[in-house]
Amino acid sequence: MGGDQAPHVVIEGLSRVAQDFTDVTFQIYGSEAEVLPLLKAHLKLQSISTFIPTTEIITADTKPSAAVRGFKDSSMRQAIMAVREERADGVVSAGNTGAYMALAKILLGTLEGIDRPAITGLVPSIAGPKVMLDLGANVDVNPQNIIEFSLMGVAFAKIVLNLTNPSVGLLNIGSEELKGNAVLQVAQQMLRSTKCLENYYGFIEGDDISKGTVDVIIADGFMGNISLKTMEGTARLMTYFLRQALDQSFLSKVGALLAKPALRYVKNKLDPSKYNGAPFLGLKGIAVKSHGGTDTSGFYNAVTVAADMIRKNINQNISAMILEFSQKLKEDETLPDSNPGGVA
Amino acid sequence: MGGDQAPHVVIEGLSRVAQDFTDVTFQIYGSEAEVLPLLKAHLKLQSISTFIPTTEIITADTKPSAAVRGFKDSSMRQAIMAVREERADGVVSAGNTGAYMALAKILLGTLEGIDRPAITGLVPSIAGPKVMLDLGANVDVNPQNIIEFSLMGVAFAKIVLNLTNPSVGLLNIGSEELKGNAVLQVAQQMLRSTKCLENYYGFIEGDDISKGTVDVIIADGFMGNISLKTMEGTARLMTYFLRQALDQSFLSKVGALLAKPALRYVKNKLDPSKYNGAPFLGLKGIAVKSHGGTDTSGFYNAVTVAADMIRKNINQNISAMILEFSQKLKEDETLPDSNPGGVA
Repeated sequence: MGGDQAPHVVIEGLSRVAQDFTDVTFQIYGSEAEVLPLLKAHLKLQSISTFIPTTEIITADTKPSAAVRGFKDSSMRQAIMAVREERADGVVSAGNTGAYMALAKILLGTLEGIDRPAITGLVPSIAGPKVMLDLGANVDVNPQNIIEFSLMGVAFAKIVLNLTNPSVGLLNIGSEELKGNAVLQVAQQMLRSTKCLENYYGFIEGDDISKGTVDVIIADGFMGNISLKTMEGTARLMTYFLRQALDQSFLSKVGALLAKPALRYVKNKLDPSKYNGAPFLGLKGIAVKSHGGTDTSGFYNAVTVAADMIRKNINQNISAMILEFSQKLKEDETLPDSNPGGVA
Repeated sequence: MGGDQAPHVVIEGLSRVAQDFTDVTFQIYGSEAEVLPLLKAHLKLQSISTFIPTTEIITADTKPSAAVRGFKDSSMRQAIMAVREERADGVVSAGNTGAYMALAKILLGTLEGIDRPAITGLVPSIAGPKVMLDLGANVDVNPQNIIEFSLMGVAFAKIVLNLTNPSVGLLNIGSEELKGNAVLQVAQQMLRSTKCLENYYGFIEGDDISKGTVDVIIADGFMGNISLKTMEGTARLMTYFLRQALDQSFLSKVGALLAKPALRYVKNKLDPSKYNGAPFLGLKGIAVKSHGGTDTSGFYNAVTVAADMIRKNINQNISAMILEFSQKLKEDETLPDSNPGGVA
């Protein structure tokens, strides 16, 4: 197992899952010397787990290409192999994102009809958490990829946000029909023409994310990643200004003291551990990425996301939606080439 | 003159500039019936202004293409024409951004060596305001454009932030050398190889914007626009959560009351009017965009940004830097084609 706080946070998080759910069992991969003593302190978890010792370690510095070539006996590779060989239904890791994505993609493969898997996550908004993808797996995308992301995002929002008919928006620099680049233009045309989404909203802008304008925000990995990190940075900036301000005078300090539960409420509303657990959607098998620096409750959340996706059979849903879309696409003769300008 | 609050906010803003600066005179373009009565109430402003009545109006709904073809006697076109014909040194408008950009680009033209003008703005960070461009003028860019933006951004940061050696970063999905797309890769290679920037930092990520990692943040118009709007949205989201929280109990309400000056401090730190005034850099002539919904002090800021750029001869600086860069580029034979894959 990986992550900045492994194995401590991982075992604590799993232990909480073991207490809360009766339909889950674990295979735990990692260093025997480090993990076994911890595991022994959690009897309930131990009773539903198998421990598989591994000897190699993929660190934060391991290049994805190196991870793919070597590290045969790393916890990351072994855990993914268990999913590939159907000895496990899903894998959760807090380790090196690039290596994890590369290994998961190669060892599990993509679902039929899915060209590129996407990193998917929850983001906070005035109207509650929303789904956003791709958060960084794909730097360049074509219109077909955008549509695949949309269908996968809808399937995920149904399961994790319990929505029956999630709305979808494409992140753009303006909400008018003619804004944006060729990829977004063609993707929108295909979405409207095939009607493959029940609830397609249209283009949205950066500030629509936190307004909660739509339930599923679709972006390429470049925009998605920059937007997500800009959100994190801005939240930290405001917290910094707020702390600075509340420390300015005696009265403001008293005010801060009295308002402490309120400030905790804001912190809780934006707590990254609440949003932890980013699946790589589109793979044959469930693979969820936990933030490397998450805490126990964050790792707990990542595991429950994976369990939910397994219980509700997300991949079967995605496959059915992709099949339906490709049939509609075949029947639709009004559409242009789905890959304008060869941007692939 | 345009903008949601015109002409009231515009005249009030100009009036404050007239009181604070002795080296500025104005030509005011707009509807005679609306502007003249207001102008008469501001004697100092009136004494340094010429009023030029115009009869046509470019509204928020006017398409850029329509603005370029018609509206000959609109305040926007007439004011830009005054710069083109050197009857004015610069133009400030709070009107329709797309129309303003299109007209300014066509009527003023770009500086020698500049392919694309860029919308440039200030963004808040822990280390004070920083310069960011492009904020939405160019959806697709090539490496040469990125370098032009960098040089223009440095010139602007020197003038507006009074920095002698501003640092520059390229917005990317990772700070490692190999991250990002081909355009960013080649742009970075050219920046490093020609050493055309004294203080080039490298790639930065979304959260580096508000950390204040660099003084000048370079992005294409797509990323820049989405990132800027994501920032605005996140700041509003946190304010919303904070208000909600401070309203939850009697104690938190008392706390909010005591901490009021502190909360005002945060609001002031992030006040958009403080950051108002976004120049279209790279044009032959100074053109500054004011936010349509700004207040008096915001319009005041936009005008002082334009005045500063004129006083300090920003375009001469930009031209000198561009010339120096193209010479360095010619001498450098290690570089690949500056337009990989025909992405233009």
